[in-house]
Amino acid sequence: MATLGANQYGKAESRVVRIIRDSPHHEIVDLNVSSSLRGDFAGAHIDGDQAAVLPTDTQKNTAFAYAKLHGVSSPEDYALALARRLLEATPAAREAEVRVEQYAWDRLGSHAFLRRGGETRTCVVTVGRDTASVVSGFRDLVVMKSTDSEFKGFLVDEFTTLAETDDRILATSLVAQWRHDGLDELDHRSQSDHRRDWNSSYDDVRDVLLSTFATTYSRALQETLYVMGAAVVDTLPGIAEISFSAPNRHHFLVDFSGFEVPVENHGEVFIAADRPYGLIECTVLREPPA
Amino acid sequence: MATLGANQYGKAESRVVRIIRDSPHHEIVDLNVSSSLRGDFAGAHIDGDQAAVLPTDTQKNTAFAYAKLHGVSSPEDYALALARRLLEATPAAREAEVRVEQYAWDRLGSHAFLRRGGETRTCVVTVGRDTASVVSGFRDLVVMKSTDSEFKGFLVDEFTTLAETDDRILATSLVAQWRHDGLDELDHRSQSDHRRDWNSSYDDVRDVLLSTFATTYSRALQETLYVMGAAVVDTLPGIAEISFSAPNRHHFLVDFSGFEVPVENHGEVFIAADRPYGLIECTVLREPPA
Amino acid sequence: MATLGANQYGKAESRVVRIIRDSPHHEIVDLNVSSSLRGDFAGAHIDGDQAAVLPTDTQKNTAFAYAKLHGVSSPEDYALALARRLLEATPAAREAEVRVEQYAWDRLGSHAFLRRGGETRTCVVTVGRDTASVVSGFRDLVVMKSTDSEFKGFLVDEFTTLAETDDRILATSLVAQWRHDGLDELDHRSQSDHRRDWNSSYDDVRDVLLSTFATTYSRALQETLYVMGAAVVDTLPGIAEISFSAPNRHHFLVDFSGFEVPVENHGEVFIAADRPYGLIECTVLREPPA
Amino acid sequence: MATLGANQYGKAESRVVRIIRDSPHHEIVDLNVSSSLRGDFAGAHIDGDQAAVLPTDTQKNTAFAYAKLHGVSSPEDYALALARRLLEATPAAREAEVRVEQYAWDRLGSHAFLRRGGETRTCVVTVGRDTASVVSGFRDLVVMKSTDSEFKGFLVDEFTTLAETDDRILATSLVAQWRHDGLDELDHRSQSDHRRDWNSSYDDVRDVLLSTFATTYSRALQETLYVMGAAVVDTLPGIAEISFSAPNRHHFLVDFSGFEVPVENHGEVFIAADRPYGLIECTVLREPPA
Repeated sequence: MATLGANQYGKAESRVVRIIRDSPHHEIVDLNVSSSLRGDFAGAHIDGDQAAVLPTDTQKNTAFAYAKLHGVSSPEDYALALARRLLEATPAAREAEVRVEQYAWDRLGSHAFLRRGGETRTCVVTVGRDTASVVSGFRDLVVMKSTDSEFKGFLVDEFTTLAETDDRILATSLVAQWRHDGLDELDHRSQSDHRRDWNSSYDDVRDVLLSTFATTYSRALQETLYVMGAAVVDTLPGIAEISFSAPNRHHFLVDFSGFEVPVENHGEVFIAADRPYGLIECTVLREPPA
Repeated sequence: MATLGANQYGKAESRVVRIIRDSPHHEIVDLNVSSSLRGDFAGAHIDGDQAAVLPTDTQKNTAFAYAKLHGVSSPEDYALALARRLLEATPAAREAEVRVEQYAWDRLGSHAFLRRGGETRTCVVTVGRDTASVVSGFRDLVVMKSTDSEFKGFLVDEFTTLAETDDRILATSLVAQWRHDGLDELDHRSQSDHRRDWNSSYDDVRDVLLSTFATTYSRALQETLYVMGAAVVDTLPGIAEISFSAPNRHHFLVDFSGFEVPVENHGEVFIAADRPYGLIECTVLREPPA
Repeated sequence: MATLGANQYGKAESRVVRIIRDSPHHEIVDLNVSSSLRGDFAGAHIDGDQAAVLPTDTQKNTAFAYAKLHGVSSPEDYALALARRLLEATPAAREAEVRVEQYAWDRLGSHAFLRRGGETRTCVVTVGRDTASVVSGFRDLVVMKSTDSEFKGFLVDEFTTLAETDDRILATSLVAQWRHDGLDELDHRSQSDHRRDWNSSYDDVRDVLLSTFATTYSRALQETLYVMGAAVVDTLPGIAEISFSAPNRHHFLVDFSGFEVPVENHGEVFIAADRPYGLIECTVLREPPA
Repeated sequence: MATLGANQYGKAESRVVRIIRDSPHHEIVDLNVSSSLRGDFAGAHIDGDQAAVLPTDTQKNTAFAYAKLHGVSSPEDYALALARRLLEATPAAREAEVRVEQYAWDRLGSHAFLRRGGETRTCVVTVGRDTASVVSGFRDLVVMKSTDSEFKGFLVDEFTTLAETDDRILATSLVAQWRHDGLDELDHRSQSDHRRDWNSSYDDVRDVLLSTFATTYSRALQETLYVMGAAVVDTLPGIAEISFSAPNRHHFLVDFSGFEVPVENHGEVFIAADRPYGLIECTVLREPPA
């Protein structure tokens, strides 16, 4: 006998672009917005009854309308407002989740812009009837160390052929997500929260991660991630935990030994490989898990 | 004070191609294999000590070696064997997960092949010291109904502009994953399990899903997914549950009303939109959740 | 002193989906349509004067309207009609080009469909005031030979390390484009051309290419492409020439020699590599070039 | 009777990473290198005779070796040296083409780097027995104007529904390629050319393009491209011509008129569309074409 289990529905990837043109000096906010609702939607699944379902088309409309009505001082603030609105508009929903990606632009002139590239800033906001959580982050932040990275002393079995190394390239395209704490202090029913400066917080985390990466000797990508995460939770009080997903983008030293002409390669020429890649994932918490 | 939380590591996307050439009539198995290990790897993270870490390079080597030593009668059988091997080789690991994607090829001759396209078959196998779970599935199975699909009677708020419709295109690029039960009967320590015919099981699930999709009137994608999932768990005894992730690939009727020449469009010309898209996700269980 | 050189403009990638619902047994045609115009558009570039410019938005509208007004018996026939219309509507244009990709669907029921996958059919139609050319083709047709492929006797210099081989995997993701001749017999001013059966022609070329690939011993991908192309132009009278772009998708035999346990690999386990890849391109003509 | 037409072969997308570690302050050069040879390779195609064919594997080896032997002061200088070497090593070749993409990295520390994102720098170098051409460029440079862009006065036919506008967003992901002249003065037989500062030249072109884009009122993307190209060829003596391929990334003003609550939208909230897109391509020459 079939039963409905977990379910959610929403509208994904609305490309919301907001121009602030209060002065001749325009500002641009460039977002990719996804929302979803979870709750009691058994009627829609089992009986084909849509009476409880706020259409995904309406979720999209609301995402665009709120870019004007609420504004976008930060992805987090906007996502909180949008999630609260969607939850309020949908009595059957227990929880609304809003995911936002933000693409950065650099200024070329008073109303001309150049897309920056580099990492994409992200956030995931989940709002329930009495709860709220905010996870900020980024993806596609690509970093490399050209030395001060080793890998040795590892477990060996009969299929192990990897040589130990004292000096290798360490590179990854980092995904990081950090959860903010202290949201109990938020008034979940308000449409905004001006007590947090989400943009400064983002810059702070990014700075700690990059400076720790740049200055830490690496005995494995696992250790590097842990040190980076520990630096965040130890120095930034508002961050409860941080999670990483880090593909190890292998750079293999090219073997020139077969050439008729001798060519030396003392850590100078590498081939960057696509697949397979190592994939290291971990979470670092400020407090020990209970 | 920073603490290590959940963590795992492995090698992702080894492109393993196995040719069976026991006769002039070759067979091909074309896989994308990812493995990961979870357990007590605090030393690697906190102390930079790799003594407990089976390198991801070794995981990759083992994936290729097992394509020969164990063979690949099905992705599931191969993944179980590989996961058991990796767990056995790594005392610190509590659990090994192996993910496999399989690309289908059609035969052109005794040793010539044409890649089929269409959906990619997937499986995720998780093996612990006393447990095993097998989730089979596919992604990128794209289906469409050109009629017998409505969407009406939905919740309306002040941002709702969507019109009700009795006749629309319903299309999705389906991701499905189904969990097999009865694995308690498996001998987890053996290197293989010949009691399951994973390939027939895959074909059975796919057939039930497609025939249900083709013959069911749709009052919403939610209902269609539920009916498809219920048909699987109700008719195929080995399947405990099935989960779907289904982007609603919108096809909008093109508006010809602004032309100087009258052009009619009675459900005949549509524009297929990329973004945004509805995203419907649900799980259907054979037994009510406890 | 700056001067305007070659230029063209148009609308790219309109996703035109046409449902034929004359009977309960629906048909679907799924296209990606791009058009561009070339001619005297110096005013738009140099003076910012758009008087000669048919907007790309209108080109899009026409692509959708013609899916109804003209219909889509084949990509080629539809593209010819659309190109002629755009040229006629734009006095400043010298030439209109229409590119079409078609995605194949298999039938699941009277109005339910499954997207086939595999290769994408393509065509490029160019219509001038007194000329027309039609190039048909496909991309992403992935084929493999698991034996009957060698590579040896090649040029060697001081950087050559490749070993000769008598037996390797040959695989490619083929792009092919063939030009039809005899279009002088077309009445370029008519809106359609019923003298060609473009769909049968497509099937014929595809069949000749696949059967030649499957049955020909390969001494290099160059030779295999040439033999395939020659089979087309020698046996199919309507094809004046055919061009190939063929990435050599390398499959490297995996080296098991470093393991503690002996594992044999007699052409049985390969790693499929992403990059770099060989890239072989050639054209085969039916008549010697003048 | 089949005949061989145009043909070329080579190795595509070798991911060459060069670390300069002469001091503790490392430098990184990150390239994607493709080479191809054109000439008399009829034997390989028609007779399966590889005697004239320098393997694509050797081309790859040479690309890596030259990153050390010649170094990479700029993509152009490296590509010229590599092309000359490949031509010299292959008597049957008439011409060697080398394409390079370069990914920029920013410094985080003496040996730590952050990938910059933004546009990818490109070059295409073609070397014959007595000739050489160098085309520099970039792709994926995304720019936007949030005002000072109109589109009106265009040609109207019976399928035209577009409204004229005095104020719209203009955005594009620009591909530009510019051809250097004065290469007759190069000594084509030398392995390097120190008379050109390719990196400064790249910066100069980029600066002229961006500042022109930022400061020019746009009456169409065609006009904007022309003005940008004219600024380059009129002010930078070494550039003979520049070509653009510019998708018009449409941003549509979101229609809030259907809401129950009034929401104004004076050029403030847009949806960024994926497909279809306008595609504008043109070349601007310094001298009138002969």
